[in-house]
Amino acid sequence: MSEVYAARRKRLKERCSAGGSASALISRPANVRYLAGAAPQGAVLLLGADEDLLVCTGPPDDRPHEGRPDEALKVQVLSHSGGDPVVAAAGLLTDRGGDSLAVEEHHLTVARHRALRSVAPRLRLADLGGAVEQLRVVKDEEEISCLRIGAEIADQALGELLESILVGRTERHLALELERRLVDHGADGPAFVTSVGTGPNSGRRGHRPTDRRVEEGDFLSVCLGATYRGYRCEIGRTFVIGTSPADWQIELYDLVFAAQRAGREALVPGAAYRDVDRAARQALDSAGYAEGLPVLTGHGVGLEIEEDPQLGPAAMGKLDACVPVTVEPGVHLPGRGGVRIDDTLVVRPEADGGPELLTITTKELLAL
Amino acid sequence: MSEVYAARRKRLKERCSAGGSASALISRPANVRYLAGAAPQGAVLLLGADEDLLVCTGPPDDRPHEGRPDEALKVQVLSHSGGDPVVAAAGLLTDRGGDSLAVEEHHLTVARHRALRSVAPRLRLADLGGAVEQLRVVKDEEEISCLRIGAEIADQALGELLESILVGRTERHLALELERRLVDHGADGPAFVTSVGTGPNSGRRGHRPTDRRVEEGDFLSVCLGATYRGYRCEIGRTFVIGTSPADWQIELYDLVFAAQRAGREALVPGAAYRDVDRAARQALDSAGYAEGLPVLTGHGVGLEIEEDPQLGPAAMGKLDACVPVTVEPGVHLPGRGGVRIDDTLVVRPEADGGPELLTITTKELLAL
Repeated sequence: MSEVYAARRKRLKERCSAGGSASALISRPANVRYLAGAAPQGAVLLLGADEDLLVCTGPPDDRPHEGRPDEALKVQVLSHSGGDPVVAAAGLLTDRGGDSLAVEEHHLTVARHRALRSVAPRLRLADLGGAVEQLRVVKDEEEISCLRIGAEIADQALGELLESILVGRTERHLALELERRLVDHGADGPAFVTSVGTGPNSGRRGHRPTDRRVEEGDFLSVCLGATYRGYRCEIGRTFVIGTSPADWQIELYDLVFAAQRAGREALVPGAAYRDVDRAARQALDSAGYAEGLPVLTGHGVGLEIEEDPQLGPAAMGKLDACVPVTVEPGVHLPGRGGVRIDDTLVVRPEADGGPELLTITTKELLAL
Repeated sequence: MSEVYAARRKRLKERCSAGGSASALISRPANVRYLAGAAPQGAVLLLGADEDLLVCTGPPDDRPHEGRPDEALKVQVLSHSGGDPVVAAAGLLTDRGGDSLAVEEHHLTVARHRALRSVAPRLRLADLGGAVEQLRVVKDEEEISCLRIGAEIADQALGELLESILVGRTERHLALELERRLVDHGADGPAFVTSVGTGPNSGRRGHRPTDRRVEEGDFLSVCLGATYRGYRCEIGRTFVIGTSPADWQIELYDLVFAAQRAGREALVPGAAYRDVDRAARQALDSAGYAEGLPVLTGHGVGLEIEEDPQLGPAAMGKLDACVPVTVEPGVHLPGRGGVRIDDTLVVRPEADGGPELLTITTKELLAL
């Protein structure tokens, strides 16, 4: 694995020196992990002209799923009084004669940036912007394999829940049970706060579970994901509770299903992000649900659960192969509930069979 | 409750105008909640000369334990394309003729600060610093009551776990079970990631549960907390597994117990933070464990699990009455394990009976 991290750092340094900075300081944890193999609490990564240095506030975590720092990296552990690693790294850089540094201005606070300036007043500071985030968009097969395993775990946890009695249980308990099952099946943990919505809460994006209990006739929507070796996937499904769904439930489900399928089918290398979004959004728009649709109908996943690309009407850019994204349109009718269907897929060329579906739980409307 | 929030905002505005700024923009979520009653995802609070405004990216969450925005506040929900609430708030302020604004530089990123500048180039920006955090240090009885309920819930969850069979179960499963029990007993959720350490992992501060299983003869250390109406408490205990602890275990336990008791007894109004720390640290120091002790032996708790004050050797300041803090010394022997004992207490005058212990689970060395 060491070569993978070294190659990533090399690519970043090339971008960086093209931008006029000899060194870069990476502070956003997911970016540190991407380039260093691990991101111990508070650690920052200093990429220098000759040497790369991981500056930590304590010894790296030894839990395997937190990753291990690349052995090719020098690790500097600050003493208790060592203060902010950002400031310490800037001090180390100037001690070695460094004169320019690109930092992640979208992650560093104004106060830390000022502290950095005051410890190294002659350092020329630049903005690294989202350079690491851009590198992270296209995944290698090792990364995709972690996402695939995470998706299998989420599918298993969801499948087991569906076999149990649901009526009378609260959203919060169902969510906790799902999270326990994720860990049982080998996840590092949930990829994000598990969402379980029943009745009027169903179909709401990011709904946080309440004490409402599942009732006959409810829509039940569930959105969960597993983290596996740091990589986060997402699956969302909507079910109906009882023997036969009402007509409005079938209609709404069919509509969202069609929208989600259109989105999935638009996932080809070279497709504009906004066209994927439009494919999923169009059916819902023309059925009169334009108001209240979420800003995005999908997004990238990886070391964070929401990464680039953003699949929305204003997004700029085109899909590449090996980019994992979600496709997750939904409709929520205030007071009644709604439907969301959410998959994680990897963009693949048609010659390779088209988009690879990672979350394979059925999308038929199940009556539970 | 509305008067409470209004009074807090008034105190902050007084500090703010003493610093020369007519308005303040609060972005740190716990600070927003403290002043507004709720902190919907991404919301910021603009405190103006005449009107206060909560700027949100979506309608406020309706889960009761997320709090409700103070009804005296005007709430502005941005449309989907409304962008960053920080930038939107600055725009609203200048539209109304505002010319100075204090922001939380320890929370705002450099990139957001720059975006704010570019939308309102004539606005005089100042640093609010930790003004809200300082207001939050001394709690009112309503806040303490939330902490007290949270501590009861954590005590219950821990007590139930101790009645179950432990040998053979993994740290991760024990931690998940504790978190489930917290929610069962009415917590909003865990106050932080539950820590369960067995054998060589016992006694490590912030240890993240692994797949190691509990064995006969192990130390088992557990640290958990409940969030109740946003307020977070903390309890930590160490047990021994099996019928009789080894001599070294009894010795180490007695030592940490004495250190923790000394820390608790030092909690009187007017005591210097560093003297409380020294009280707890001294016994461990003189027993030869000075190396490897944590930076802090305790800290404030409230809407966040680590708040001011910091009880450490370099801390400046003195305790007030009605400040809830943890006292949590511990010793970890690499390869062998260790002991941590952690309580949440409220500083009270001696006339009122001295420090109020919120976490009442026994601190005898139990053999389970």
